[in-house]
Amino acid sequence: MNYWIILYILGCVLKFEGAFLVLPFLVGVIYRENIAPCYLLVAALCFLLGLLLTRRKPKSARLYIREGFVSVAFSWIFMSIFGAIPFVLTGEIPFYIDALFETISGFTTTGASILTDVESLSRASLFWRSFTHWVGGMGVLVFIMSLLPLMGGSTMNLMKAESTGPSVSKLVPHARDTAKILYGIYFALTVFEIILLLVFRMPLFDALTTSFGTTGTGGFGIKCDSFASYSPAQQNIVTVFMILSGVNYTAYFYLLHGKIKDIFHLEEVRWYFIIILASAGVIACNTRQFYPAIGETLRHAFFQVGSIITTTGFATTDFDLWPELSKSILVLLMFVGACAGSTGGGMKVSRLLILFKSARKELSLLIHPQQVKKIRLNGRVIEHEVIRSTNVFLVLYFIIMMLSMLLVSIDSYNFTTGFTSVVATLNNIGPGLDLVGPTQNFSIFSAFSKIVLIFDMLAGRLELFPLMILIMPDTWKHK
Amino acid sequence: MNYWIILYILGCVLKFEGAFLVLPFLVGVIYRENIAPCYLLVAALCFLLGLLLTRRKPKSARLYIREGFVSVAFSWIFMSIFGAIPFVLTGEIPFYIDALFETISGFTTTGASILTDVESLSRASLFWRSFTHWVGGMGVLVFIMSLLPLMGGSTMNLMKAESTGPSVSKLVPHARDTAKILYGIYFALTVFEIILLLVFRMPLFDALTTSFGTTGTGGFGIKCDSFASYSPAQQNIVTVFMILSGVNYTAYFYLLHGKIKDIFHLEEVRWYFIIILASAGVIACNTRQFYPAIGETLRHAFFQVGSIITTTGFATTDFDLWPELSKSILVLLMFVGACAGSTGGGMKVSRLLILFKSARKELSLLIHPQQVKKIRLNGRVIEHEVIRSTNVFLVLYFIIMMLSMLLVSIDSYNFTTGFTSVVATLNNIGPGLDLVGPTQNFSIFSAFSKIVLIFDMLAGRLELFPLMILIMPDTWKHK
Repeated sequence: MNYWIILYILGCVLKFEGAFLVLPFLVGVIYRENIAPCYLLVAALCFLLGLLLTRRKPKSARLYIREGFVSVAFSWIFMSIFGAIPFVLTGEIPFYIDALFETISGFTTTGASILTDVESLSRASLFWRSFTHWVGGMGVLVFIMSLLPLMGGSTMNLMKAESTGPSVSKLVPHARDTAKILYGIYFALTVFEIILLLVFRMPLFDALTTSFGTTGTGGFGIKCDSFASYSPAQQNIVTVFMILSGVNYTAYFYLLHGKIKDIFHLEEVRWYFIIILASAGVIACNTRQFYPAIGETLRHAFFQVGSIITTTGFATTDFDLWPELSKSILVLLMFVGACAGSTGGGMKVSRLLILFKSARKELSLLIHPQQVKKIRLNGRVIEHEVIRSTNVFLVLYFIIMMLSMLLVSIDSYNFTTGFTSVVATLNNIGPGLDLVGPTQNFSIFSAFSKIVLIFDMLAGRLELFPLMILIMPDTWKHK
Repeated sequence: MNYWIILYILGCVLKFEGAFLVLPFLVGVIYRENIAPCYLLVAALCFLLGLLLTRRKPKSARLYIREGFVSVAFSWIFMSIFGAIPFVLTGEIPFYIDALFETISGFTTTGASILTDVESLSRASLFWRSFTHWVGGMGVLVFIMSLLPLMGGSTMNLMKAESTGPSVSKLVPHARDTAKILYGIYFALTVFEIILLLVFRMPLFDALTTSFGTTGTGGFGIKCDSFASYSPAQQNIVTVFMILSGVNYTAYFYLLHGKIKDIFHLEEVRWYFIIILASAGVIACNTRQFYPAIGETLRHAFFQVGSIITTTGFATTDFDLWPELSKSILVLLMFVGACAGSTGGGMKVSRLLILFKSARKELSLLIHPQQVKKIRLNGRVIEHEVIRSTNVFLVLYFIIMMLSMLLVSIDSYNFTTGFTSVVATLNNIGPGLDLVGPTQNFSIFSAFSKIVLIFDMLAGRLELFPLMILIMPDTWKHK
């Protein structure tokens, strides 16, 4: 194991986090909040530690897949450990485990909160909470790669570990250029949403934090009722941008290059929209009697479906009160998740398509044993390794889910609460059902359960493998 | 598709069912019940129809995998369709869908009941309910194969479709001889349990029905409180035989041949016992305050764990009142299920071992990309096809589970009820939690939900593939 390169990457990440933490400090200064210096202090700490770790350039810049995955896992863990400190220093979240839960929920774009009263938070902290979504959404190492010529050509393994989906497709030959394009699109989407929200008279601070939460598919709101008190127009804008943020960014890349036809060939994106339309349609029929007008019913149905399938987690209504059918659809959507190559969580539509197609192929092999057929997605043959690792993903996913459910059940809340708390964190959604429903929060859990759920959030965002490699004893054995 | 052979097999099955139905008729005669002739009537109907279908021997006896799977699926469906008629004729279950639910629950060894008062049933019907467990436990076609030289050497594909586990291991070179050995062991286990229960003063009728339900891992009781009112000694005997019935029958084959050492090499059996001991241990600690004595706590813990992991479904206590941790353990055990090559349901320990090992191999490939390693189970290399079909099993399993959950949620019972009703039927357990808990029953569901759960029970017992092949349009296309 090349430890030097891991430490070096960690150093880079901490330097960048130092820079990020200056932003909430500035927000605090603008709003004249006396807790602002806490953020500057931690910013300085991160920056100094970062400098120390990057002082010595590693001799070898080679990043094997093992080093890539371990670097990414450590980066996310340490970024969260330091990112949580300001909440404790400001006294707003006195217990460190709670602060860590909130920060990891932010970076992993989960949006599950342990806060019982969000509105009592300082502006600086509210900004930092939402900003962690934006940083984590596209991935911090992808961001760094897009700015720094980090270590030559071997950065692909970092991208593999941090990007979403069963396989990473480079849009252009170089990983660094791909990273630049991805962050460019991400930035543009965010700015576009901020402007639109401002046009529809949302205050600037709200527009900023909402947009970070939307394009990062995070879900932290700055109000206790999440999104219920915003105007219908503002809610609809957020619905559209949530859904757009769950689309595979390859589609936007094609759009920029005028390859409109190619977008329609993206099977995953097609199914993503079919699932959204079908789910929102059924839910609208099922919840029709809950709202006075059909327009309102549709608005709530699309908002909630968009919020859950993209794993954002905003809410405009308490869907825990909806009929069982609608709730079950939402729970299924939690598993589905957004498209690969987006900022959303969950299992991803493309993974499900691969699994579905491999099941169909196996069944058809039983009927026609002589048949030779390859599995294709978006018109391309899916390599055997991708199918295998997708299968293993499913296995690991359910092992982690089942074990987490077991550990969380020690707290003795009811089955629905325990089950959906794990599903909502592992898929980076935010709210679950019952005691962790959209109007509730995660403060009820013991410190032990919080640690389990913290693990689930990280495992979900990094798509299991980096975190699993970290805990495999084999990784740390010397040969 | 060779339709003639399918019809011929169906005919054999119906003839045998005719013979089976004579038994409850005799029971009715012994107890002087005036509904007894209903059973004789249906017996005659089945036998005549069977004669009609087997009058013409098929020209070709070749049974490809497709024909094998379709035959088994159709046999089970028609066997249930006819087996349900007596319940309607006697007037004990007036609605046919309910009768079908009860019968399929019997044959698939699920044990989920729609009856609100079991004790009001006639002895003949109680006997038939329990006897369906025994017939379905080891498989009706395996039984027929062991008696008749059905169609030469191509019966392996019937056994593949009806036996449990990821791959069928023939104990001896011929499928027919293997079937004989399996039914021999099955018969011996059942007789042994009947004798032991009689020794411990259980009435003969109770001993018979209990033993059918135990060795078939079914779960239909003849009392409203399932097993709570039997003596501790009788409960413990049932615990032991439930657990023994979940063991891979290969172990008994080795035992008969004095190969004791080989039994210890059966990884699956080892893990099966480890899981039972660990689960019962934790549950005993967790439920310690519910019962006056430690012995009683252990008795209930082992009974319930044995009942759930083997997917029998008897209960000595209302485990729905247990703490969440214990309930969560039971829900996990529902998924685990018994050993392959046993009469139990669920996913099977060996499937989980294969999935677990393939996940570990994939992770270790990320650490050591050059490594070449094969997956072994019980010391033997697992073939690539078995791993692939195990993965596909998992995928199909979750697709069916999720869709069923969605459809059942239309009834608008709470999440726990909907979720565990699907889990309990798909894994052929019987009771779930909350409204379908051990003291409740499945009568609350609509006819639509019952049909969904009927599908799940059949899919679970036949391990998905035969039923999936039946509904694939490709199966019915002419080339």
